[in-house]
This record gives sequence, C-alpha cells and structure tokens, in this order.
Amino acid sequence: MNTIIETLQQLVGNPHVLTEDLDHYVTDWRKRAKGKALCVVRPGTTAEVAAVVRACGAAGVSIVPQGGNTGLVVGSIPDDSGTQVLLSLQRMNAVRAIDGQNLTITVEAGCVLQNLQTAAEEAGFLFPLSLGSEGSCTIGGNLSTNAGGTQVVRYGNTRELCLGLEVVTAEGDILNGLVGLRKDNTGYDLRDVFIGAEGTLGIITAATMKLYPMPAATLTAWAAVPGMTEAVAFLGLAHRYLGAGLTGFEVMNQFSLSLVDKHYPQLRVPLWKETPWCVLLENADSESEQHARERFEALLEAAMEAGCVTDAVVAGSMAQARNLWHIRESITLAQAEEGLNIKHDISIPISSIPEFVQVTDAELAANIPGARFVDFGHLGDGNLHYNVQAPEGEDFKAFQNQYEDRINDIVYQSVQRYGGSISAEHGVGELKVDRLPEHKDPVALDLMRRMKRAFDPRNTLNPGRVIRA
Amino acid sequence: MNTIIETLQQLVGNPHVLTEDLDHYVTDWRKRAKGKALCVVRPGTTAEVAAVVRACGAAGVSIVPQGGNTGLVVGSIPDDSGTQVLLSLQRMNAVRAIDGQNLTITVEAGCVLQNLQTAAEEAGFLFPLSLGSEGSCTIGGNLSTNAGGTQVVRYGNTRELCLGLEVVTAEGDILNGLVGLRKDNTGYDLRDVFIGAEGTLGIITAATMKLYPMPAATLTAWAAVPGMTEAVAFLGLAHRYLGAGLTGFEVMNQFSLSLVDKHYPQLRVPLWKETPWCVLLENADSESEQHARERFEALLEAAMEAGCVTDAVVAGSMAQARNLWHIRESITLAQAEEGLNIKHDISIPISSIPEFVQVTDAELAANIPGARFVDFGHLGDGNLHYNVQAPEGEDFKAFQNQYEDRINDIVYQSVQRYGGSISAEHGVGELKVDRLPEHKDPVALDLMRRMKRAFDPRNTLNPGRVIRA
Repeated sequence: MNTIIETLQQLVGNPHVLTEDLDHYVTDWRKRAKGKALCVVRPGTTAEVAAVVRACGAAGVSIVPQGGNTGLVVGSIPDDSGTQVLLSLQRMNAVRAIDGQNLTITVEAGCVLQNLQTAAEEAGFLFPLSLGSEGSCTIGGNLSTNAGGTQVVRYGNTRELCLGLEVVTAEGDILNGLVGLRKDNTGYDLRDVFIGAEGTLGIITAATMKLYPMPAATLTAWAAVPGMTEAVAFLGLAHRYLGAGLTGFEVMNQFSLSLVDKHYPQLRVPLWKETPWCVLLENADSESEQHARERFEALLEAAMEAGCVTDAVVAGSMAQARNLWHIRESITLAQAEEGLNIKHDISIPISSIPEFVQVTDAELAANIPGARFVDFGHLGDGNLHYNVQAPEGEDFKAFQNQYEDRINDIVYQSVQRYGGSISAEHGVGELKVDRLPEHKDPVALDLMRRMKRAFDPRNTLNPGRVIRA
Repeated sequence: MNTIIETLQQLVGNPHVLTEDLDHYVTDWRKRAKGKALCVVRPGTTAEVAAVVRACGAAGVSIVPQGGNTGLVVGSIPDDSGTQVLLSLQRMNAVRAIDGQNLTITVEAGCVLQNLQTAAEEAGFLFPLSLGSEGSCTIGGNLSTNAGGTQVVRYGNTRELCLGLEVVTAEGDILNGLVGLRKDNTGYDLRDVFIGAEGTLGIITAATMKLYPMPAATLTAWAAVPGMTEAVAFLGLAHRYLGAGLTGFEVMNQFSLSLVDKHYPQLRVPLWKETPWCVLLENADSESEQHARERFEALLEAAMEAGCVTDAVVAGSMAQARNLWHIRESITLAQAEEGLNIKHDISIPISSIPEFVQVTDAELAANIPGARFVDFGHLGDGNLHYNVQAPEGEDFKAFQNQYEDRINDIVYQSVQRYGGSISAEHGVGELKVDRLPEHKDPVALDLMRRMKRAFDPRNTLNPGRVIRA
C-alpha cells in the first residue's frame, strides 16, 4: 500500500503526509470510537485536495474528510481497517475575502469558526453561527454537518447562512460555486446537496457565507416558567414582541440546572430552585440598549400577566449576560461530571413539545427505574437535548449497558409519533446510520442512495456514513 | 395513444381529463410559446398524482406539471409534439393545517399564493412571499421555481420559507416529507433538491411553510438617490438602522419611472423628474407605527447627511403606501404599453452593481444605437430586471429581430464578468436551458445531469427543461 502514500507525498509535500502520532486525528471527539488511518494528508490548496481525491480514487482508497474533529456522530474519523486516508482541511484556513456591501465573507473550509466570527467582527459585521465547540470546529465541518447552535431561531442553521460553495467532487473535479448571490435560479441546488452530507458526496473546500449588520445592543434574560406549556406560550409572545430581535430561546429543566449548581456552584444559577423550568432568552436590537431593555421589559410584563413567567432577571451587564450563557453551556459538562449519560438530539414541532416531554418522561420513568432526565435545549427551534442520566449512586456503565437500547427505543419511537427527527443538529455519521431505516421514509432513503451513487459511484468519500451505498 | 387517456380517466375520473379547449393550459404566460398536449389531467389527491405518474411512466409518456401557469421561462407548458400529458395541480388547493405555536402552515401545491397569504392572515400570522402574480400563481409553482418577489431581503426566497415537502417521484412513489421542523439532520437535503427543479425531478404535491408573527406596523418610503453607488450605500445604512425591519429595498431608474408617468399619469410618481434613481423601501416593525416612523426618519436623516438620498417621502397612510408599491409594480405594464422589450432577470454581488450598470449601459449604448434602459429591481437582493427597450418610434419587432441576441450576449457576458447569475429568480425552463452551458461551470452541469438521471432515469418529468438529460 505504500505507493499511495508516496503519491500523496509528491502531491502535497512530505511534511503534510503523516503516518505517526495520529491519535488526535483518529479518535472521536466524545471518545466513543477510535479508528486507524493509512495516513493523514493535509493539503494546502483546493487543487491539492482535488489531486489527492483523484489519486485515492485511482488507487481504490477511500477518504475521510475532517475539519476540527468535534463532530458528535462519529463521522470524521476513519474506520478501523487502516486502509482509509484521512484528509484534514486544517491547513486551508484562510479568509479569502470580505465584501461589506454585499454582506458576504469567503473562507476556506479549515477556518476555525471563532476565527471567522472574529474576522467578521473586525470588519464591523456579525457572523451569527455560534456553538459550544467554536474554538476548534471549522466552517467546513459546520457546513458538512449543517450545524445549529444557539442563534438558529433568528439566523437559521449553517445551511441558511451559506450562499456558495467550492467543492471537490468524488472524481476530483473542482466545482466553482463561490457565488455571493442572494438569488440564483440557474439550475438544481447543488449547494444544499453538499451541505449536511458529511463529506459523503464531495469535499467542501471553501464557502461564501452571509454577514449581518452588528446589532446595536444585545440583552439576555433568565426567566422562571411553571411548565413546558407555558414555555411554549412564552416563546410565542417573544416572537410577537421582539420579532427578529429574538436571537435565542433556550429551555432547561430543574434537574439539569441542579447538576450545574452541584458541580459549578460558583456560577450561581438564578431562580432554579423554585421552578420546574427556566428559559434563557436573548434580544438583539438594531437601535440601542435602552430600546432593547424597554422591549424586554414589555415582553416580560406581558408574559407574567399571561402566567407564562413567574419571575425573571435581565442581565445588567455584558459580564452577567455571559455568565447566564455560561450556565446554559455548562449543562453538558455538569452531566459529564455526574457520570455517563445517554444523549439525544431530537426535534419536534414546537406545538407538540409539552405533550412529548410529559408522555416520554412518564414512559421512561415507568420503564427505567430511577432514571433522571436532563431536558434542555433550543426550544425556539424545537430542538431538545433530551438526555437520560443513571439513578444517583448507580454504576453508570452497568446502567448504560442494561438500558441504552431500551431508552433509545422509547425516545425515538416517541419522537416519531410526534413527527420529529432523531437527529436535529448533530447529523447521522456512523452513530445513527443504521438507525435511520427505522425512522425515515423508505422513499427518502432510496433517493438518498441514488444521490450517493450518482455523486460518488465508487464510494470513495466517507463510506458508511449517512447512508450505506 | 388513446389507451393512456382511458387509463387516466379511470384513475382520476372522466371530468378531470381534458382533451379540448386547452389553450389556457398550453399557452405560455408571456405568450412567447404555445404547446400541444395529449391531454390535461387534473388529479385531486396525492395518490392520484402518483397513479398518473406510474401510468404515464408505464406508457412511456412524459409529463409536464403545471400550477398557475404564470412562469416566465417557458417551463410549464407542453412542447408541440402533442404527446405529453399536462398535469395540473390546481384541484389540489387545500390548506391542510395551520400550527400557530409551531409557526407553520401545510398546504397543497395548487393553493393560490394569495389564498395562502389570506389563510395565514386570518390565523393572525404573516406568510411573507409576495409577487406580482400572487392572485393566480400557486405555491407549488413558487416552490418549483424558487420564486423571489419583494420581501426576499428579509425573508429569503421561497426555498428559505419551506420546511418540508410531499413529492411524487418520477417512479410514482410518494415522498412523505411534510415535516414542520426547523432542524432535521437525518440525511441528504431532499427538500432543496426538489425546490427550484421546475418539476424535472419530482412533482411537489404539498408543502409545510414557515409563518411569521404579523408585524405591528409596516411603513413605506420613497427616496431620490443621485446614483447607484449612493443607492448601495443607502442600502447599507438601511440594514444598519432597521436590522431585520428592512423588508423591501427596490431601485428604479428615471426612464422606467418616466414610462409609468407616461402611461399611468394618475399614479403620480413622486420625485422622479429631478433624480436619476429612486428607491422604494419598506420597514416592518414589531413594536408600533410610531416606532417604525421614528426609525425611518432616523435612517433618512442619516442617509441625507451621508449624501445618499437627496429627497424622500414617507407614506402617511396605507393607501399611500399601496400606491407607491403600485408604481413599482406598474413598470412592467408600462414597458408593455411602450412596446416589446428584451428582458433580463439577473443578479450581481451588490458591491459590484454600480460598476456593472455603468459598464453595461455604456457597452449597450455603444452597440445598440438609441436603446433605452429600463433598469429596476430588488437591489436589496442584488437582483435587477435589466431590460432594454427599442428606440422611441422604432419598429419594436424589427428591433428585437435585429438586436436581441446581441443584447443578450452583452448583458450575460457582463453578468458573468461580475460573478453574477443570468437567472436570478425566474428559473431556466426551456427559455434558458441552452444558454446555461455558456454561463455555468461544466462541473455543475455534469452534477445536474447526474441528479436528473438518478431521480428521473426515464426522463418522464418535464423533459428538456433546466437540463437536457
């Protein structure tokens, strides 16, 4: 098999073909899986990516593309055969252009999300995609997984933020689609085919993304709500009072906040002790901080009158606002401190969420003795991270072994009954590829298989992820 | 060929298979083409659509799907062979469901856009898609052509308004994708494959669309701007001052307004005589009319100070606002009154529009003696309807015959130099299918061909449109 390594060395230079110390590249972010790569290749240009793909195709070697390797569904590490080439986009990290009048930024796939945010900010604009791993994930990975994050309620998923793509196809051709156009109806929507395809249909090498004017002020509030029904009603009021000013609407149940309080008491979680649910919401205003505050107060007053909110605080400073978001983002870490848990990334039509939570909580409680529910997520998008923690003091590994499949069955079947999705923002990868057939329309699966065969007839790109060829 | 007609009669009932008086169905909206259909079939349910597709597939008969037949690129009428079945979706016009908490509406493809807007409004919500033909176009046609319209700067094209689709595939299967989810990453984005595909990959039979809270107030203003450079700078200020409140930003040159003034003097076009360009803009406010007016005035003051705007009026009533929009929408009719003209539907990165217009105007003026330019469009989206009218008093037909190809070449080559699109919002259809290869990346065309073959291997659906199989 050495010839392909030598070929790759010729194509991208010896220092950029790695065969040792690959742990960082082949280990899944959540440490659930570890693969083995023939080598890691780190091309520096789009033409090099294309040459690598052609060489691998000719040699019958399959390729796993990787950005920051922060994915949550085992989609960016090689399998354990040792025959796959891992193609890292990290050297392609340039910001190619910023066009303020066109409100666009063109970046290479390996650009770290935070660097993209910073480049936009330095030019006086907002790039609104924001998620926990933004310090290490790349925009290419965000695009390939159609990442969500905390501002989807206003700005949409990564898909909605993208105007154009440069892609290396499975045959090693370069698709020049870096258009900065809001409207282009010259044929099929190839852009959205590659977005969310997890590198199975082509390799995204660069993208033209939307920018937004920087808001004049952003305010954050924390509200106690008596139940999920009231949280949904509160969301409706927030849409009405804030319009597009509503940029975040997160919900957290009492148990999830109790874990933050237990493991990070210094964060001083507000209001959680007296209420089953809390909501974190954000208002970005194009006018002024004073106006943002007035609108927030009008909303909270209306919500209290309507009985949706029992108590609330509006952050008085940027530091306080950051702390509130920090609490929200610490739930995942607090869960990990508490022990292993079984995670779900589901979405449900928002109107059905109260009933879904009630019914599914009850079914789990009846079937999984002592299970504890870490229910939180992006209610504004109908996306819950509906996680299950072992009973206090129990052996977590044993709990997982005994109950994981049953818990997943209960949750996913309930999701399906309510017309939801078993993967809202994390994708499919290897983790859920064999779950899809149970939960997805067979006609959709057939069309997906046709797309895979049409775009990657030799099954070179990230085989076994998203759909089995 | 009678057997297929009989089969269709059995499938949908005799009254819904038409073989006479088909002019309305087979004539292009702009009367540039007229086809001939074997018959018109009007199924009433999704199952009937599927059965029709299967029957036609088995008989080797191709199908042209049609909504309101208001398309602008000859995409929804049959060819002149007399062998194609025209499948009208007009009987499938029900609003299936409105979910206020989820902010979604589910409608059948044949629902007329205006009826959809009204249904949303009656439930207290806004469905923001709005275009000239909204009284007769259907949402299925809007989706199949990814229609744009006047509110794209805020709400996006039809694509961005759609969450889920029900589609009958080329093989007559039903794809059940009517999800009302803001996030769903369970595989390839089939929805966006069918949107904008002009019925060549599948037949959209129903859709779940996004709703928005109704704005508290909508205000309209009309501004005189000294040049396109200033218009673009004004747009930047409008983004900054109004944020997502900016729902419309239209530009019109003096000649286009002079035609409205000439043919519809009763509309009393404001400000046009003293300025080369006018801008029509709209501000939708989630708070109040007073607040909308304050923000508008702050914006116009800043724009005047910056020299982007020389004069402006803010509509004082709904009737005045409607009249301003009516002027804008009358440009097309005024052009028609003036005589035949050569139309373009182009988009350019907004930052390049001033130079594009200057350079292209000059090139046309040098090559096409006496040509008059009707430049107007959705500047907020970078989309211009850049039309060319014959010299005053000349024979329009002779002018068209002599210059049409040359004008198109000049315009489209210029569009390409500035990284633009030769079809921004109207689509490809038959009109531009053979223009695409000159202007589109061959890799993109190859991938489009693969998609067509993968989804419609027998070339049953709207053959010859978008891409030749």
